[in-house]
Amino acid sequence: MGVCVTNIVRTDADIVEKFQGAEVATVHEAQGRKGLLASYMRPIYRPARIAGTAVTVEVAPGDNWMLHVAVEQCQPGDILVVAPTSPCEDGYFGDLLATSLKARGVRGLIMDAGVRDVATLTEMGFPVWSKAIFAQGTVKETVGNVNIPVVCAGALVNPGDVIIADDDGVVVVRRKEAAAVHEKMLAREKNEASKRPLFEKGELGLDIYNMRERLASEGLVYVDQKDYQKD
Amino acid sequence: MGVCVTNIVRTDADIVEKFQGAEVATVHEAQGRKGLLASYMRPIYRPARIAGTAVTVEVAPGDNWMLHVAVEQCQPGDILVVAPTSPCEDGYFGDLLATSLKARGVRGLIMDAGVRDVATLTEMGFPVWSKAIFAQGTVKETVGNVNIPVVCAGALVNPGDVIIADDDGVVVVRRKEAAAVHEKMLAREKNEASKRPLFEKGELGLDIYNMRERLASEGLVYVDQKDYQKD
Amino acid sequence: MGVCVTNIVRTDADIVEKFQGAEVATVHEAQGRKGLLASYMRPIYRPARIAGTAVTVEVAPGDNWMLHVAVEQCQPGDILVVAPTSPCEDGYFGDLLATSLKARGVRGLIMDAGVRDVATLTEMGFPVWSKAIFAQGTVKETVGNVNIPVVCAGALVNPGDVIIADDDGVVVVRRKEAAAVHEKMLAREKNEASKRPLFEKGELGLDIYNMRERLASEGLVYVDQKDYQKD
Amino acid sequence: MGVCVTNIVRTDADIVEKFQGAEVATVHEAQGRKGLLASYMRPIYRPARIAGTAVTVEVAPGDNWMLHVAVEQCQPGDILVVAPTSPCEDGYFGDLLATSLKARGVRGLIMDAGVRDVATLTEMGFPVWSKAIFAQGTVKETVGNVNIPVVCAGALVNPGDVIIADDDGVVVVRRKEAAAVHEKMLAREKNEASKRPLFEKGELGLDIYNMRERLASEGLVYVDQKDYQKD
Amino acid sequence: MGVCVTNIVRTDADIVEKFQGAEVATVHEAQGRKGLLASYMRPIYRPARIAGTAVTVEVAPGDNWMLHVAVEQCQPGDILVVAPTSPCEDGYFGDLLATSLKARGVRGLIMDAGVRDVATLTEMGFPVWSKAIFAQGTVKETVGNVNIPVVCAGALVNPGDVIIADDDGVVVVRRKEAAAVHEKMLAREKNEASKRPLFEKGELGLDIYNMRERLASEGLVYVDQKDYQKD
Amino acid sequence: MGVCVTNIVRTDADIVEKFQGAEVATVHEAQGRKGLLASYMRPIYRPARIAGTAVTVEVAPGDNWMLHVAVEQCQPGDILVVAPTSPCEDGYFGDLLATSLKARGVRGLIMDAGVRDVATLTEMGFPVWSKAIFAQGTVKETVGNVNIPVVCAGALVNPGDVIIADDDGVVVVRRKEAAAVHEKMLAREKNEASKRPLFEKGELGLDIYNMRERLASEGLVYVDQKDYQKD
Repeated sequence: MGVCVTNIVRTDADIVEKFQGAEVATVHEAQGRKGLLASYMRPIYRPARIAGTAVTVEVAPGDNWMLHVAVEQCQPGDILVVAPTSPCEDGYFGDLLATSLKARGVRGLIMDAGVRDVATLTEMGFPVWSKAIFAQGTVKETVGNVNIPVVCAGALVNPGDVIIADDDGVVVVRRKEAAAVHEKMLAREKNEASKRPLFEKGELGLDIYNMRERLASEGLVYVDQKDYQKD
Repeated sequence: MGVCVTNIVRTDADIVEKFQGAEVATVHEAQGRKGLLASYMRPIYRPARIAGTAVTVEVAPGDNWMLHVAVEQCQPGDILVVAPTSPCEDGYFGDLLATSLKARGVRGLIMDAGVRDVATLTEMGFPVWSKAIFAQGTVKETVGNVNIPVVCAGALVNPGDVIIADDDGVVVVRRKEAAAVHEKMLAREKNEASKRPLFEKGELGLDIYNMRERLASEGLVYVDQKDYQKD
Repeated sequence: MGVCVTNIVRTDADIVEKFQGAEVATVHEAQGRKGLLASYMRPIYRPARIAGTAVTVEVAPGDNWMLHVAVEQCQPGDILVVAPTSPCEDGYFGDLLATSLKARGVRGLIMDAGVRDVATLTEMGFPVWSKAIFAQGTVKETVGNVNIPVVCAGALVNPGDVIIADDDGVVVVRRKEAAAVHEKMLAREKNEASKRPLFEKGELGLDIYNMRERLASEGLVYVDQKDYQKD
Repeated sequence: MGVCVTNIVRTDADIVEKFQGAEVATVHEAQGRKGLLASYMRPIYRPARIAGTAVTVEVAPGDNWMLHVAVEQCQPGDILVVAPTSPCEDGYFGDLLATSLKARGVRGLIMDAGVRDVATLTEMGFPVWSKAIFAQGTVKETVGNVNIPVVCAGALVNPGDVIIADDDGVVVVRRKEAAAVHEKMLAREKNEASKRPLFEKGELGLDIYNMRERLASEGLVYVDQKDYQKD
Repeated sequence: MGVCVTNIVRTDADIVEKFQGAEVATVHEAQGRKGLLASYMRPIYRPARIAGTAVTVEVAPGDNWMLHVAVEQCQPGDILVVAPTSPCEDGYFGDLLATSLKARGVRGLIMDAGVRDVATLTEMGFPVWSKAIFAQGTVKETVGNVNIPVVCAGALVNPGDVIIADDDGVVVVRRKEAAAVHEKMLAREKNEASKRPLFEKGELGLDIYNMRERLASEGLVYVDQKDYQKD
Repeated sequence: MGVCVTNIVRTDADIVEKFQGAEVATVHEAQGRKGLLASYMRPIYRPARIAGTAVTVEVAPGDNWMLHVAVEQCQPGDILVVAPTSPCEDGYFGDLLATSLKARGVRGLIMDAGVRDVATLTEMGFPVWSKAIFAQGTVKETVGNVNIPVVCAGALVNPGDVIIADDDGVVVVRRKEAAAVHEKMLAREKNEASKRPLFEKGELGLDIYNMRERLASEGLVYVDQKDYQKD
């Protein structure tokens, strides 16, 4: 038994588009360091950078049947997010499915399992973040779920949430929080942009962030090496 | 004590050559999803794609002595397949051995352990699939075996079998099955080629593969999100 | 409580400069196969190759505060070497800190943890060897140590030691041994250079290194495949 | 910034108590194979078996401050469920915290990180499922969250959900589904109990479950070994 | 499509019985250090020690259907050896299947995947060596193979081979080599038994095995610590 | 080439004896959270608890020759600490070597690799902490070093240092710091002993350690669940 949820509510497209070009690390900080997928989720080629709305798929290990069900639910601007019910590195996804997704305007794939045909996917410019690259095929025997909340690589993803992915990894932003997170992200970018010239001039973070006093109060002492007793 | 088996029977060269340019995933499917090496076997540079006949080597952990014995057994068109007797990531192989293999017409290396000098190997264009990249050197103290059947990265490889490797990984095809597998591979490629334009036009796998009825009979139901009770 | 050791004694700059362009594998062999960091330390982009003097940092898991303390201790020609007190993959380091280090003439980073902003670091050409790429941020709450001996990825690194890193990994050379190791490295390179043309001509390592007799005495036998009893 | 949610709604105690002695595998099946924590969550001693209501804690890597905040929120019958914001194996928990939890009637700990003092915890009979055993200490510097939904070892846990843990691992049951899951669990146990005597008598699953026809229709053939062509 | 090979030729029972009580490490040495399964194959309880003949099963990831087919092929004295076609930790096996195997006189299970119900299996005294303990269930949808040669945890196992397993792991002995390996094992045990009293008396391996001269010739030197230059 | 350093200076026996029965976690805290070996170092049986002086051995991967050299350097009260030059899980150590060490009064083994014969070692009561249990044998071909400083499982160990090991893991204490660390350990134990009755009575760490004010100042807020907006 399985369910395919249709007509999901997506984050407003105009908000999603504001995340184009956004950095995962900055978004992650802006929303209070939550929503990050595990570090093993790596892009199959670099550089790669996308933002879009999640269509979620829950699949059995070694069974990619539900991907075909999910494709039909995709709209332009979506990103497919796939989570197996138990850990698996099989190659669920290859160039035919990528062709299908591309034809529907899907922006990329987040796969907590393996993919294959990566040479062709790279030539096609279809970006994928996955746990593994593995030629191992899958079957089409077991029904799963589409567009239910899934835990993908350690992060809860709801259908319609915003997904942002780049060379640093993948982050999810809740639909209802997307606008607010974007505001905080802009503030953060502005702040970083103001600091960069100072670092370029050689100023120290110790001074820029005014850290010296607090470091001392936490017990940091400076000792000349000639006075320091080696281990 | 060790043995070096000489005058091995190789897969016919004309059959092997038909696998040039073949995709690992397609070959793996064509032969009934067997013969795939583990997903941790990765190319040291991408893209890379080779096909050839296996010369097998079984080595002690941290000891690359037998590689020199194996080189002498290689012919043009061969691929060296190396398996340690216990897991090891040491750098068994570098640019001098690659130079030696290249001089003998060997097409690449499959190493269930580590390699080094990867910058030079990349410049030389000598393709390697390995478990690790590691500068750690090896000794030459313990005798092993050449051209006996070995289990390499979880797959049984006999000397003379066909090895195909690309960005997706490595697959072995039995000598006696190579011709038949090639036939099936062609059929499979043809079938995929016929499907690709359909996907490009936006047709769905659900329809192309006629999946809807079977999905329903296996219990898949469609529910509008507004009627779906969230977790 | 923590300590920042100042005015560390570095390996003489003229010796360090002799290691520019050196290969990690060759240096590692030259010093008797010691000083290699673990194989999981990988460059964020390839090719990459640096040599310099170590400034060491010991940090708490998920806390990058001490990196700012360490920056002030850096001089042109240094390489920052960071070790957490327990395993951690968080992204301790991004483009602002890289800008800061670059402004001070630091040549690269060796991080036994995660880094982020790797797309920008790649554009900047700031080389990093790390255990992970991960957007996960860190806090600035716990004091650690700068310029004490640290165990980084399994290797002991003292402040002022020479660090050499390339596509094969990272090796540390003791300050007092640097000159002698460099001499041995040159001898080794010369020896390898003399062997390369022999391999290119198709000569065998078996003959170049005169291995046949010792192999036989260790029990290696040659058997024609038609006489070899298969498993 | 962090939040401690108070007065959480828990699954009714009379329903929870019905899960005492339940098997994780059976519960997991009964609720449609969902809610299982990752296989790396292992009991520190065996046998161990508990059921109770979740009090959740989200902690920074290497920082156990919030455990003390969480203790105050615990009631008799609770189980503490701890998730770090990034992977960590540090020893967040030892015998003093176990003494504190025991004094409040807490039934055990689910820790997606490390614990220590396991010899004492074993003597005390305080059951713990964890990712690691590690003496590494933690700090108390960074505020986290108590009783918000957390992803623990790959499973979403809400405060007040039912946790069942035994030698096979840990499963979470949603508060609102607990009664229904319990009903299905009883049916499942009854069914298994009816099958066990058949297996004990030597009857085959092939016959008990009536599998032969479907196996044949899926293509299974029986071949005598003397007629089977070996690989 | 799949095949179940029937009427397999097993190693003679009288030879197999001679391996009862044998140690895996000794058998492994006696047959020239081959046939060992990977170190991740661990007994679910200790101590455990069995010897018997292999009935092999190749299964799809997350699918235990073929175990039921295999049970019918088992005879008293057999050991079931299960290998998935791609890595999987799901719980393929629990107490009902163990009851079924026990009723047929099967001595244990070697599972390169996960098992569940380990508390009950321990009470039953049914020994299992597996890659994981995991409550995750499996489906019965995909046909596999019984009694074909399989690679299990890195070792090739043919149906009818001898399997020996103890707290150190699992080793396979080829059917045709079993008698000879047993002879060598006895010689080895005798030799070890003759050495044990010498070690108990405090004699050194250096002298018992006459190592001093060869160590010196390989370059070992003894240096008093007061003359040794520390790092 | 290798060196065996003789007549090493050990920590005074009377200081070492004070650590008998000490807990690794407490010692680790007492010396400022340093000196801990990696979490993968696990006892082969539990409970186990030892303290003694380190005799160090550096070995090649898959080669246990130097263990025999090291045995001769051992005195009653020593603990053998073995580090391979590259990662290895082979079974370097079994019951004969344990018999030899026991005859010389050695208290246990710390092995950053594999061991075998664990059933016998358990019966003998010879405690071992190791990275793996693996029947895989080793050779005796390559010379290594005895009683030089080694990095074992991520921690620097000098010959003569104090090693303490229990069910939580292994910690090393520098020879010169041992007396001071012991003093701090006693203070810590005393402090913990004074807190335990408070926890047993149900007092909270929040109050015992006076944490409430600082938590509030760091931003912790309490919110009733009915006022908390769920994700």
